[in-house]
Amino acid sequence: MDVSYTPARPCRVEDVPAWDIDTDVAIVGFGAAGSCAAIEARNAGAAVQIFEVASAAGGSAALSGGEVYVGGNGGTDVQRAAGFRDDTEDFYRYLMMAGGPAADAERVRLYAEQAVDHFGWLREQGVPFKGTYLPGKWIEPTTDDTLLWSGNEKAWPFSAVAQPAPRGHTAQFVGWGGGKVLMETLCGRAVELGAQVHYGARALTLVVDRHGAVCGLVVRLEGSPRFVRARKGVILCAGGFIANPDMVRRFVPAAEACQQQVTAGNDDGSGIRMGIAVGAAALNMQEFFATLPFFPPESLVKGIFVNARGQRFINEDAYHGRVAHYVLRQPEGRAWLLVDNGIFGRPMLQPDIPIAAVGESWEEVEVELGLPTGALVHTVEAFNREASQGRDPLLHKAGEWLRPLTEPPFAALSYCSGDFGAHAFTLGGLATRPTGEVLDADGHSIAGLYAAGRTACGLPRWGEGYSSGLSLGDATFFGRQAGLRAASA
Amino acid sequence: MDVSYTPARPCRVEDVPAWDIDTDVAIVGFGAAGSCAAIEARNAGAAVQIFEVASAAGGSAALSGGEVYVGGNGGTDVQRAAGFRDDTEDFYRYLMMAGGPAADAERVRLYAEQAVDHFGWLREQGVPFKGTYLPGKWIEPTTDDTLLWSGNEKAWPFSAVAQPAPRGHTAQFVGWGGGKVLMETLCGRAVELGAQVHYGARALTLVVDRHGAVCGLVVRLEGSPRFVRARKGVILCAGGFIANPDMVRRFVPAAEACQQQVTAGNDDGSGIRMGIAVGAAALNMQEFFATLPFFPPESLVKGIFVNARGQRFINEDAYHGRVAHYVLRQPEGRAWLLVDNGIFGRPMLQPDIPIAAVGESWEEVEVELGLPTGALVHTVEAFNREASQGRDPLLHKAGEWLRPLTEPPFAALSYCSGDFGAHAFTLGGLATRPTGEVLDADGHSIAGLYAAGRTACGLPRWGEGYSSGLSLGDATFFGRQAGLRAASA
Repeated sequence: MDVSYTPARPCRVEDVPAWDIDTDVAIVGFGAAGSCAAIEARNAGAAVQIFEVASAAGGSAALSGGEVYVGGNGGTDVQRAAGFRDDTEDFYRYLMMAGGPAADAERVRLYAEQAVDHFGWLREQGVPFKGTYLPGKWIEPTTDDTLLWSGNEKAWPFSAVAQPAPRGHTAQFVGWGGGKVLMETLCGRAVELGAQVHYGARALTLVVDRHGAVCGLVVRLEGSPRFVRARKGVILCAGGFIANPDMVRRFVPAAEACQQQVTAGNDDGSGIRMGIAVGAAALNMQEFFATLPFFPPESLVKGIFVNARGQRFINEDAYHGRVAHYVLRQPEGRAWLLVDNGIFGRPMLQPDIPIAAVGESWEEVEVELGLPTGALVHTVEAFNREASQGRDPLLHKAGEWLRPLTEPPFAALSYCSGDFGAHAFTLGGLATRPTGEVLDADGHSIAGLYAAGRTACGLPRWGEGYSSGLSLGDATFFGRQAGLRAASA
Repeated sequence: MDVSYTPARPCRVEDVPAWDIDTDVAIVGFGAAGSCAAIEARNAGAAVQIFEVASAAGGSAALSGGEVYVGGNGGTDVQRAAGFRDDTEDFYRYLMMAGGPAADAERVRLYAEQAVDHFGWLREQGVPFKGTYLPGKWIEPTTDDTLLWSGNEKAWPFSAVAQPAPRGHTAQFVGWGGGKVLMETLCGRAVELGAQVHYGARALTLVVDRHGAVCGLVVRLEGSPRFVRARKGVILCAGGFIANPDMVRRFVPAAEACQQQVTAGNDDGSGIRMGIAVGAAALNMQEFFATLPFFPPESLVKGIFVNARGQRFINEDAYHGRVAHYVLRQPEGRAWLLVDNGIFGRPMLQPDIPIAAVGESWEEVEVELGLPTGALVHTVEAFNREASQGRDPLLHKAGEWLRPLTEPPFAALSYCSGDFGAHAFTLGGLATRPTGEVLDADGHSIAGLYAAGRTACGLPRWGEGYSSGLSLGDATFFGRQAGLRAASA
């Protein structure tokens, strides 16, 4: 055949020479969303074939910390055992605020009500959660504990809207690597239930019938295009697009400021492009998760960020991803973390962060940074005065992180553009119903097409409101919904 | 027929019962982009049919001020007569910065190089420009002068990047109404050249062939669907989507904070949706123009905006739309314009703006606003100290607007959310080449489909960088390119 397939151009069913593979549900991508979709579709009795471009299972989720953001309904047994109550309404309000202006109330409601059950479901599949609580402020746990504070729960303005509870539930593994455990379990379960997996299988494009319904896909298997009939539907679980520089430039240029891509390498946006090609609307394509790990050590959270005007701009106890977005948007890309001798320590994950100024007084630091006279000094003095009273009327940093910066020498760690490496992945994706049904520009579903995980615009919709575990929570839960819905089509 | 057509679902050419209308180029929308596309397509010898949903010509452009943002090449004759030189490189750098992170260098380059010629072309079509210069800072001129400062040219950081020049060229008309003159002229010219116009004609959806190429459209004429064959192409010039509350909620939820829609009523996003339906990528859908007319009187520009932390956040001499975006994003939606007796006047366009605090001292104002102790007082003192020296090291407001706020009584005008009405229109749209060719998700053109004006993601791509006249400049110039390219297909 002389046809070359590309995600942006669907194949018409009339042009399919013959079906090479016939199944009920075809799933593109064998990561967090794809594995859960497969499990539910198999449990519902559907024949399932999975097409994974990599040579192994797990997707980008396998490289993650394996953290799932769940709570509500009074709390998971893990939350309750650690002494936390977590009402559904608090969880709901937190998730709505975390979703930002584009938060999807219907999706959030469903998740808030069913997340505890979902946690139980993950355990039933065999995912190990130790059940222990790790206090403190972490980017990722270095222990094998399960429960940790992983978002903005205790930070203003979130804390003013919803009763805080720790909701990050991490698969048991010592240190970074819970994602491997999580994905080995979920992918193993899908296979055990009879899902058939093709590795090294690149989905080339969707197949549509004359009414615009998706009825299959074209995949490259062993070098040749193969035609897959999907009687009940195709579920796109192919990840986001942070690994596609061209898409990043077109859709989320602000993320180009982040040097590190959070991906196992195949988040090339092909799932999103295949959806767009058949008329799907893509939502929130400009949003991205970003982080800069300015702590640990935890003591650095007691420092204060200032911009080139000497102004503070964020409560530093907010989630590190929220802090990152605020740092990234400061005028001229200039920001510094001010510390004194009492709290200073090299940031563990970026020990080579430049120290832009050191002085025996804040005046010296101000001069060395070249800031407007008095601007930084006033900011620190006002902060110190209030912090000594346990208050932060400007930015509402919580009391446990308030400590006057009065012990010389003083220093400014540079978070100016180019001086640090931020990490990013994309949050925009195909418009879907909570069932995973993909929606067109008028908001109607496209027959036969489903999406979940970062291919969809899901629960996490706002870089400033992200919490660790939201993406895995979203991908596993809404992957399940898509699997169930497709199987019942 | 029992088929009901909707923009999000294209019609297959096999399903067209018969062509009711046959043309070379079909244009959807008879506004700024559509009229210019028609003129060029007719001049190139193509048969042109225009489908306009309203009962009259002009689109939203007819309700505008009729201002076109042009310069470069040393300046238009109007700029030069007023003593301004405008180098292409300055114009280019300004437009690139004005486009924000998503600025399209190829499009900007073409426009910067050809805008002076384009201004000549508009005059050749008969658009009257008086040729006189109106100094000062205006939202819109109240005279019939042509040339005015209409953007961020003289404001930091734009002024630091490009030599400023006034570039807003307004069609001659006393006061608000230049858009009517502009559009009557351009639409009249298109008709004169033989473009055939159908009014009350709603474009329902595009017609695609088996290769995905656009070969026509379905329109509702006198209550019935009619099938239009477009041998050379369809040009979507159907405006933006600010008048479609559902699309605003899904694609640009932040704009919901603006109560006033800048539209003649038909910016319902149908052009964008028709494009998405055939696989086009939509770019920058979250961006919007917003403004709050906090001046005239011009003296209010000498006031300073502060947020709930008592911090300044914008140089108030920036373009009013840029100021609006900064005001809209302040924490908790709270901001005030601080004025003293020397500069106070009721904002002409919002005379009922609430005065949130009045005092004989700034301490009184601070207390009345409930701000953190000393925060506002420090900000005003620091501003006054520097302003008395003609400096603004924090925000780089230009010298002509710097005046210490020292004459009591002092007041704070409320620009808190709900206290003012912001105006908005959308800036996101279909991905196109500068030629108007619409692009799919892989960045390849979709045969037979073109877009211009606010249906496309054009020159103006960043609410913070908008300048009056950018949208009309873009729509008329790139409308022409689309007409030319389609006619030569």
